Amino acid sequence: MKETKSRYEIWKQKAHIVIYGTNTPAGRWFDICILILILLSILVVMLESVEEIDRKYHDILLITEWIITILFTIEYFMRIITMKNPWKYILSFYGIIDLVAILPMYLSYFVTGTHVLATVRSLRLLRVFRIMKLMRFIGEASQLRTALKASRTKIAVFLYAVLIISVVIGSLMFVIEGEENGFTSIPRSIYWTIVTLTTVGYGDIAPQTELGQFIAVFIMILGYGIIAVPTGIVTVEYAKSRPQESDKTILQEESPKICNQCNTENYNTKARYCYHCGNPLFLPERDVREP
Amino acid sequence: MKETKSRYEIWKQKAHIVIYGTNTPAGRWFDICILILILLSILVVMLESVEEIDRKYHDILLITEWIITILFTIEYFMRIITMKNPWKYILSFYGIIDLVAILPMYLSYFVTGTHVLATVRSLRLLRVFRIMKLMRFIGEASQLRTALKASRTKIAVFLYAVLIISVVIGSLMFVIEGEENGFTSIPRSIYWTIVTLTTVGYGDIAPQTELGQFIAVFIMILGYGIIAVPTGIVTVEYAKSRPQESDKTILQEESPKICNQCNTENYNTKARYCYHCGNPLFLPERDVREP
Amino acid sequence: MKETKSRYEIWKQKAHIVIYGTNTPAGRWFDICILILILLSILVVMLESVEEIDRKYHDILLITEWIITILFTIEYFMRIITMKNPWKYILSFYGIIDLVAILPMYLSYFVTGTHVLATVRSLRLLRVFRIMKLMRFIGEASQLRTALKASRTKIAVFLYAVLIISVVIGSLMFVIEGEENGFTSIPRSIYWTIVTLTTVGYGDIAPQTELGQFIAVFIMILGYGIIAVPTGIVTVEYAKSRPQESDKTILQEESPKICNQCNTENYNTKARYCYHCGNPLFLPERDVREP
Amino acid sequence: MKETKSRYEIWKQKAHIVIYGTNTPAGRWFDICILILILLSILVVMLESVEEIDRKYHDILLITEWIITILFTIEYFMRIITMKNPWKYILSFYGIIDLVAILPMYLSYFVTGTHVLATVRSLRLLRVFRIMKLMRFIGEASQLRTALKASRTKIAVFLYAVLIISVVIGSLMFVIEGEENGFTSIPRSIYWTIVTLTTVGYGDIAPQTELGQFIAVFIMILGYGIIAVPTGIVTVEYAKSRPQESDKTILQEESPKICNQCNTENYNTKARYCYHCGNPLFLPERDVREP
Repeated sequence: MKETKSRYEIWKQKAHIVIYGTNTPAGRWFDICILILILLSILVVMLESVEEIDRKYHDILLITEWIITILFTIEYFMRIITMKNPWKYILSFYGIIDLVAILPMYLSYFVTGTHVLATVRSLRLLRVFRIMKLMRFIGEASQLRTALKASRTKIAVFLYAVLIISVVIGSLMFVIEGEENGFTSIPRSIYWTIVTLTTVGYGDIAPQTELGQFIAVFIMILGYGIIAVPTGIVTVEYAKSRPQESDKTILQEESPKICNQCNTENYNTKARYCYHCGNPLFLPERDVREP
Repeated sequence: MKETKSRYEIWKQKAHIVIYGTNTPAGRWFDICILILILLSILVVMLESVEEIDRKYHDILLITEWIITILFTIEYFMRIITMKNPWKYILSFYGIIDLVAILPMYLSYFVTGTHVLATVRSLRLLRVFRIMKLMRFIGEASQLRTALKASRTKIAVFLYAVLIISVVIGSLMFVIEGEENGFTSIPRSIYWTIVTLTTVGYGDIAPQTELGQFIAVFIMILGYGIIAVPTGIVTVEYAKSRPQESDKTILQEESPKICNQCNTENYNTKARYCYHCGNPLFLPERDVREP
Repeated sequence: MKETKSRYEIWKQKAHIVIYGTNTPAGRWFDICILILILLSILVVMLESVEEIDRKYHDILLITEWIITILFTIEYFMRIITMKNPWKYILSFYGIIDLVAILPMYLSYFVTGTHVLATVRSLRLLRVFRIMKLMRFIGEASQLRTALKASRTKIAVFLYAVLIISVVIGSLMFVIEGEENGFTSIPRSIYWTIVTLTTVGYGDIAPQTELGQFIAVFIMILGYGIIAVPTGIVTVEYAKSRPQESDKTILQEESPKICNQCNTENYNTKARYCYHCGNPLFLPERDVREP
Repeated sequence: MKETKSRYEIWKQKAHIVIYGTNTPAGRWFDICILILILLSILVVMLESVEEIDRKYHDILLITEWIITILFTIEYFMRIITMKNPWKYILSFYGIIDLVAILPMYLSYFVTGTHVLATVRSLRLLRVFRIMKLMRFIGEASQLRTALKASRTKIAVFLYAVLIISVVIGSLMFVIEGEENGFTSIPRSIYWTIVTLTTVGYGDIAPQTELGQFIAVFIMILGYGIIAVPTGIVTVEYAKSRPQESDKTILQEESPKICNQCNTENYNTKARYCYHCGNPLFLPERDVREP
């Protein structure tokens, strides 16, 4: 009995490395398969939304959809089983995403109309970033994140200013242009102001009076100028957040050992226990050979 | 009598800290309430401008509007009363904004048609920046302001060049495209040129002749390129204006004592008198406990 | 006779300082008057182009136009007379601009139809930059110019790439979308490509086929991304070209003595002869007092 | 026989320098001729696509086209002949481009309809960069390339995020706006989202519902903000990749000797053999004088 359990434990550990890890060939293949499945399922959802395609190939699309959903369901339960502490995964961001990615399809079996929710699975794409850990992406992405986090409050102040400008000028344009020129309400005028300030410029609403056009010109030049502010902030923060060249290469050459209790990545090559929860780390080569 | 006056004085000082300060819990709550009121009042003004909503809920909106206006009126007089030198506040930027925020409503009671001016109160949003003083916003905002102030003359030169280009090319397009293609006057042609140069591109006016389209392409690439100029300027100035890391943390940990005579913020923790006007600073903890 | 000539010479020198210099009160007033005249004349030209205004106030506009033209003619001849070497001015950039600014009006007296050329005078605005020499503008403008000059070849390479992309994708879209969707010729397709790449997006031509929209999306993201290139170049060059703080202040405090032979600005405070042509410099205070 | 062969060899070497080199007067002239031919041929292709011009001048355009094609064919065979190892050229990027540039015309002689492919020759423009080697372009272009290469993975992460946002918001808008407002399918909604996110804003599809406009405003501000990210990345990478001033001038003053076996550029002035393949380098001055 103990023997069986031990073999099951070893299988669980091996599966954990394949599913959560990215530094073994099997782990890489698993991630690539998931990535392809995600892209395929998004394609199916998109094609379904195009009426003429859906009419012709409805059955093929539906069957593909079900196959993908079942594969994702298997993946979901595999992820739960191979974790020592399944709730850690279930309640995590990716755990919820994974659940949301399979639920709508089952719901759609009972209820019709919730089908559209299936696009929520595009959020699953976020998990693909894990594959990129293989490459030097992690250093860069985390650097970007640091820069954006550091710029956060400054960009908030900037957006705050943009909103105040939009409300003031939007209200002003509502008074100047009036309903006859398409500025039917203040929210709509604010919508137009932001369309202009961000240099999008649909043209569905456009000022007709001379004064309105003068103010429009003012907003455009303002918008053209203030785009410099977030750019300046991010550039400076990003320049500041650049990692040391030496540190980066070390980080790249190391492949982390993922703890199958708390999912923490242990970069220390000599680590035999997770630095976070103390769980013994499963060292692939040796442990597999000597069960 | 003196006893009563002293208690009134103490009440005034306490109220001053609540209204003008942001570093006591009461002061924070006061600011949050004002912030909510501002947002609510802007929402009401917006909803009023949407015809179908106004028709249905006219009375509710009007009553809400009056309640907010009365609350803002109370706030306005509180701010005047709790200042030792009320004119200091009344004639300040925020004092005028506060007055402008309540006046239109009272005026609208006598005169119909000035109602729209109520949106001027969106300027009140500027006061919300005071709440942010709690956080590290002040360092950043002032840094941004420094960068923009330093870039001012350079950006003026840049805008100057943009205007000369717009006038020259606008006039040229008026000659090339002519009235039949929507370029009915030079101001309108200049309007189109700026719409194109800033990459807004409404499409309400678009060149039809080959030469006109060629010049349009030229303007677009020019506009696409010269956006680099303000961005470059702001980035460099911003990079230059970065405060010393050490200074910033000190600034963040300190909560200023606001003088209730001149409203100056005293960051020196040991200060008992305003460094600006010499008025004794009201030190919350001790003074409140020992009246 | 010699006495008269000498007084004429002194008058010429004084007039030269007023007209070409900016560091005497009279020189500043002269520049401000010219600036106002330029702005007024541009306003007149603009108003003339608006049909309804021209119909009503045609006579007033025409008279204003003639008065301005005569004043500019006087200024032109004053500039020629007060130079020791008039051809130096006549053949300079500003000399040609000044001539072009007055010629069209006289030509329009003889020939009808050349009237529109009057807008060429907007180029006169360029001379306004001289006023800005008063302030710290010169340092900044020249710094910007240095940055742009240094970025020149890199931006040329960038524009070169933009043009190749436009030609290739424009031709592709002509094949994909075809005449029925508004892509009537390759030049027109290229026009559309640049409209999209620079994120202007008029919407007068828009892809209708699925493949066309897919390529459009590709161009948009490309355009969105490559705007980073000129911005990066200008920012780096601008950061590099920043003048030494110490040098700048010296430059600002000095008011140059303008040589009335070669128009060179002599910044050396002790200079009595032009460093460029050796002509004795007219030193306002002393020379005027001791003729 | 040996003598003839030797003279042919010398002619080949001289031709090789003219065709592949840019640092002899003849080589420069050759490149300029090719450049003019390329521009002329693109102009012809463009004019052919404009219906009214093609109808009038069809014969002239066709003859010009054939002349250019024949000249390009001669150039193509010259390039093959003058290489010691012709396959090196034939299978290179430029070799394929050169072939593609002449093939469509010959194909169009047999098959009608492939004529449009002639625009592929605009890719030939890429070869024009070789001319620019004369000037200081090479340093700059390679610096730009270094910066872009270094930013590659970061920009990929950025585009990845843009795509996820587009898919999620596009699907959302499809649900919110629906078919009656132009959002007929998810791919079309994603197209609209990218049009808005990149601030292009055609206006062919525009949100009509209040919620749709609110989300549109959100996307615009997002797009307006995230443009800062690639700009920040490229700026920082570009700033980092700036070459040493001293190295650059050395690079510019040297004119490389191009090996006619492997086409490697030898910058070492004293080199007599190619550092890459060991082939003796043809030293123009001396070798030509002493055959």
